Order: sequence, then C-alpha cells, then structure tokens
Amino acid sequence: MRPRNKKHLEERYEKCIYLTVPDPCDLKGKWRTLFNRDGAPLYLEIGCGKGAFVTGMAAKHPEADFIAVECVKNVLVTALEKTAASGLENIRFIHTNAEILTDIFAPGEIDTIYLNFSDPWPRKKQAKHRLTHPSFLVSYGTILSESGRVVQKTDNPDLFEYSVESFTENGWRLANVSYDLHGADTPPEISEENVITEYEKRFMESGIPIKRLEAYPPGR
Amino acid sequence: MRPRNKKHLEERYEKCIYLTVPDPCDLKGKWRTLFNRDGAPLYLEIGCGKGAFVTGMAAKHPEADFIAVECVKNVLVTALEKTAASGLENIRFIHTNAEILTDIFAPGEIDTIYLNFSDPWPRKKQAKHRLTHPSFLVSYGTILSESGRVVQKTDNPDLFEYSVESFTENGWRLANVSYDLHGADTPPEISEENVITEYEKRFMESGIPIKRLEAYPPGR
Repeated sequence: MRPRNKKHLEERYEKCIYLTVPDPCDLKGKWRTLFNRDGAPLYLEIGCGKGAFVTGMAAKHPEADFIAVECVKNVLVTALEKTAASGLENIRFIHTNAEILTDIFAPGEIDTIYLNFSDPWPRKKQAKHRLTHPSFLVSYGTILSESGRVVQKTDNPDLFEYSVESFTENGWRLANVSYDLHGADTPPEISEENVITEYEKRFMESGIPIKRLEAYPPGR
Repeated sequence: MRPRNKKHLEERYEKCIYLTVPDPCDLKGKWRTLFNRDGAPLYLEIGCGKGAFVTGMAAKHPEADFIAVECVKNVLVTALEKTAASGLENIRFIHTNAEILTDIFAPGEIDTIYLNFSDPWPRKKQAKHRLTHPSFLVSYGTILSESGRVVQKTDNPDLFEYSVESFTENGWRLANVSYDLHGADTPPEISEENVITEYEKRFMESGIPIKRLEAYPPGR
C-alpha cells in the first residue's frame, strides 16, 4: 500500500531539489565528477524508500559516495528531507525506476548495488518486476566495476529464494549468504557491515529473520 | 530411526562382498584401476542408504563409475543386493563414514560428490556431523577434480539453508540452486539430470518441495 499523497508534496520536493539529479542520463560515465572525488567508491541503492539505509550508510562511510534511486515520489521526499537535515554531502537521489539503469550509468561505474526490502511482486506474472529478475541482473553486471557486487537484504523468504535461484542460474557467485542476519551464527564482519533501519528493526522485533546475500557477476 | 537389525545380516553381506571394497585406503589414487577404465568419470555418493539413487544413476550413466559410501550396514546390505540383482558393474561400495575421505581418495580423484537426503542433525551441537559442515567442505575440495562439484538434494529446509550458508561463507560457487526441484520453474536440464528415488517420490507426493544445489570449490 502506498502512503497517501503527502501534503504540499511538490513544494517540499522543490526545497530539496538540489539533492536530486533531474537528468541523470547526462551524467552517464561522469558520476564521479558530481561529487568531485575521483577515487571514491560509488554505491547505488535501488529502491531507497524513505532513505534510512542510504543516509545511515553515507554517515558511516564518509569515504564513499552514494546514489539512491526511488520511483515513488511520496516516499522519496522523506529521504530528501532526511538527507537535507543530516547535512550529508555524499548522497544524491534519482527519481526513476530501475529499468533504465544502463542509460544512467556507464559500464563498470558502480562499486556496490544495494537492494533492501524490495517489493517481492509475489504473483508469478509479476516476476519480471522483481529486482533480481534475470533482465535486471544483466544491467547490474554491466554497470558494476570489476570487483563490484550486489548486496541484497529482505524479510521475504519467497523473494530471497527467487533471488538465490536467479543469481545462481545466471552464473553469479554468491558469498556470505545468511538466512538469519541477526542470528547468533552470522559472522561478525557481516553484521558489522550492516546498517539496521527502523523498518528492519520492526521485523527483528517481530521475530522475522532478515535474509542477506552478496552476489558477484559471472566470471568475477 | 534405524531399521531393526536385518535377519542374517552378515550372511547376506558376505554374499555380496565382491561389490564392496574392504580396505579402501589401499586404493587411494588408484580407484580408476578398480574399474579398469582410465578415462571414465568417477562419481561418489556419500550416504547412499539403500542405494536407489546410485543404482539409478549407474544404469543411466554406463560411461561413468560410481563409488557409494554408507556407514549403516543394515541399509548398505540392501544397496548391495539391489546392485547384485541389477548386474551393474560400474558401482562399488565402502562401509565407512565420511570423516576419512581424504585417506581414501587422492587429491582431484573424484568428479562429482552426491549428497542425497543427508541426516540434517538438527541440534546446533550436532552441526559438525552435517555433511556440509566446513570441515567436510575442506575434504571435498581436496578430493574433487579441477571441474569437480558437489550436488546436494534434500527435503529439509534447515539443512538446505545451512548448506547454502556454509558453501558461500567458505568461498564455494553455487550453481543452479532450486528450492523446488519438481516445480514448474526448474529448467529442464536440471530435472533431466536427476534420478528420482522412491524416497524422493514420497516427498513429492506429500507436497514437500525437494531442494537442490550444485557447488564448485573456491577458485574453480
């Protein structure tokens, strides 16, 4: 269920417009110039929602730059306001969907792609919308750097199983798969890398295990 | 629960003793001489039970040789009798447990290791007995050939999740993971490679999905 239209949405969005990139295709191959830091790793979150993860990560990793994509303006505006309030300078937002990633980013331009609690699109007919559908994996493989990877977290067992199947059938190498990220058996280096959002905390409190994986494109 | 001691177990076992290898460590590095076929692939099933899988595979793949390991003599004897009745000449059995694999096989000697419906050892304290515990993976990686792999099937979701975590945390590459081997989404080349045992058929009839994975050692 999408949240009701926020009051004064456009007005609020305009106030933070400096944090967005209205014509992202113009920056293809040049994203590092936007942040003016040539050597910095560039991380991309697809479907950032209200921005809790990306702002948490950007605060924890000042050495890296972050781009967050979100197609629902109603929630994106909250992410923008959160970023504005934090004063973080290493995040920019794109209001778009994931279908045009290869128009936005050049081959090898991104170091890590984060997929957090993505829409599971449970019906079989909707499978092509799942962010780990083979067609998306092709785009990810293109825009990821030589050592680049996808990091996925979800509470949804069906989406997770679909993702494991999709990655392994398409030649991706999985690493550090965890079926219970906050369980006792998860190695500390994985738990420590994680940023726990409010959303994730709610699942933890309800006893729903969070699943997580890392995936590397074929041949890397 | 183990089956009750079979009547005349020793007597029946002796009749089929020619299908077993009583001193397997003596054949280390020389298993191909046993079958007298130098170029043939050598496949190993760990925990063959009553032998339905290995006999089915051996009949389907006359071009390959099979070794089956089973530590419970009561069930092993059925596998021996089944093989004797079938007249199959490309299977030999070892009455041992999986702890001494590297004493039995030389590095690179095995092409595929099959783990079918292994004991899940559900208690945390028993994890070291699970056939995908990291200590076993080290042995598997040693005895597998350059293109060698592990193929695992199970009905047990906990064992499967444990296995996926264990393989990926230890650098193994997973391929063709399926959470429902007999479901509509499984690619035909995977279903066709499978030998369905009576045991597996029972699970299918009860609607319990069979899970399957292929795993390649680190760096291969």
